[in-house]
Amino acid sequence: MKAIGFKKSLPIENPESFIEFETVKPIPGPHDLLVKIDAISVNPVDFKIRQNSAKDTVLETPKIIGWDAVGIVQAVGQEVTLFEVGDPVYYAGDITKQGSNAEYQIIDERIVGRKPKSLSIEEAAVIPLTALTAWEILFDRIRISAEKDKGKSILIIGGAGGVGSIAIQLAKKIAGLTVIATASRLETIDWCKQQGADFVVDHKDLISSVREAGFEHVDFILDFVDTNAYWDSMVELIKPQGHIASITGSAEPVALTKLKSKSVSFSWELMYTRSMYQTEDMVEQHNILNIVADLLDDGILKTTLNTTLNGLTAENLKKAHELLESGRTIGKIAIKF
Amino acid sequence: MKAIGFKKSLPIENPESFIEFETVKPIPGPHDLLVKIDAISVNPVDFKIRQNSAKDTVLETPKIIGWDAVGIVQAVGQEVTLFEVGDPVYYAGDITKQGSNAEYQIIDERIVGRKPKSLSIEEAAVIPLTALTAWEILFDRIRISAEKDKGKSILIIGGAGGVGSIAIQLAKKIAGLTVIATASRLETIDWCKQQGADFVVDHKDLISSVREAGFEHVDFILDFVDTNAYWDSMVELIKPQGHIASITGSAEPVALTKLKSKSVSFSWELMYTRSMYQTEDMVEQHNILNIVADLLDDGILKTTLNTTLNGLTAENLKKAHELLESGRTIGKIAIKF
Repeated sequence: MKAIGFKKSLPIENPESFIEFETVKPIPGPHDLLVKIDAISVNPVDFKIRQNSAKDTVLETPKIIGWDAVGIVQAVGQEVTLFEVGDPVYYAGDITKQGSNAEYQIIDERIVGRKPKSLSIEEAAVIPLTALTAWEILFDRIRISAEKDKGKSILIIGGAGGVGSIAIQLAKKIAGLTVIATASRLETIDWCKQQGADFVVDHKDLISSVREAGFEHVDFILDFVDTNAYWDSMVELIKPQGHIASITGSAEPVALTKLKSKSVSFSWELMYTRSMYQTEDMVEQHNILNIVADLLDDGILKTTLNTTLNGLTAENLKKAHELLESGRTIGKIAIKF
Repeated sequence: MKAIGFKKSLPIENPESFIEFETVKPIPGPHDLLVKIDAISVNPVDFKIRQNSAKDTVLETPKIIGWDAVGIVQAVGQEVTLFEVGDPVYYAGDITKQGSNAEYQIIDERIVGRKPKSLSIEEAAVIPLTALTAWEILFDRIRISAEKDKGKSILIIGGAGGVGSIAIQLAKKIAGLTVIATASRLETIDWCKQQGADFVVDHKDLISSVREAGFEHVDFILDFVDTNAYWDSMVELIKPQGHIASITGSAEPVALTKLKSKSVSFSWELMYTRSMYQTEDMVEQHNILNIVADLLDDGILKTTLNTTLNGLTAENLKKAHELLESGRTIGKIAIKF
């Protein structure tokens, strides 16, 4: 099968940053599906892995990365019960396994969902990783309850990115929260409003701009940009008994105790935790992807696709990574095979 | 009225560390009760405030501290609706206001509960601050749901202290969790078992002793001793997607990012947050105290009283603080007026 990968971590403009090569089609294990991929998406984690996983070494065989994918089940392992050959599926993959930048991939059935029927392959390909991340952060980490928390306020730092876009939709339409998203350019402000944000504020002077929007404090904060950089602003803006959650990691130690007098909670969300640790509730990702597929088919959620590239080529992966690395992408990028 | 207080932060063995004095009986504001106090309890926060609040100064009038109290409502403010004159009540107070080491105190009705009928005044006096802390940490911060989380495991670091004791009871009897508590002396181990701990482990080599008890990871950890000192052990022991909560504060910045790969959450709990910030849901403390009173009267929870001193005297407050400062107290100390 054809695949795109790299032997060394190189700047994206280097001709060898991605290379096309032939490799053997993988064989599914007992719980795996073999999927023929039709479209993929890229996420910031992709370029972080490309930039760091082969920094001081040259790999013998190229590494295949990429996690979001849409495709058709071609074969199933002997213990598979959730899917059959021919099923259209979508998924965000497992960081410990070979990725989706290839014609075929094997994937544990417990982290796969049915492809939303009403979406094109490229519209569906951009959903899984960001929707799982946003769903888990809201409902599994913060444990937001639509019943208990309806009408509370949430500040989403980084509203126009991939995960920000779908988080705005889920926070607004599923959790029933009042959404304040950050964005600073005309087109990103507009995009956040299209996703359902009630208020869009500038991140540059975050405290003042949230206060100007009429919020002394907010009940919840999602940080999709930089925990260390926004720590003091989040400490100031979070409501007593509020909850902050982040996907970014903190390079520097954190003055955690600043949250104590307000009895604030903080959560990390990593979409890969369930598959990486093979948690008992790993099948929740299957369930979440199916719920999200229903919500997309019912028109309650909409795709966050903004850019489509055509063809599984090294060139297109370079273009997609370059766009993401700029940090200015709006919504999501798909590559249609 | 008679009160006990201090003009300067002094070591407890100093004759002036607590002094007896006469002061005017306070007058209730619109939402306040005036309570004639019958018994009080002491908590670690008491000696921390005594040691630190008048370090570099001598106060003109002595400061009255102390928060846990049991008493009878003597007068009510004009907007009070929850209580009447003559009601027996118990409460944990408000850190921004004058304390309970006195014959009379005024207290906002929204943070007061009805005294458990079946308990003596000294048995009831030891409950409010620790029960509110333990209830809030389990059900408001971690958002443990008896339905969803039944049978999960919780590690309680500092099981034999005041808050540890009631936290063991609530975690076991109300949340339905499997409780592993830390204690290292024969009498503290025995005490933790009496409170309902399923396992008691030594805190000295925490990781090994929890593993020897049969737990590779635990779903929840409550730290009642020292966040910084136990950070790396908690990082190792917490289950992926687990939740750590603490009441201690962290003097040093924390390597928060170590919790990221497991998607772990962390909460602070401060019993004073609701009254200090006058949160909209401040009346929850009234509700929690009433629920706890019911649970005590129904015999589901039991008092954590272990030592009773008789009389509102400077001598008894010195003795109580000295015991607490040793860090070796088991359960709780009451002072009966």
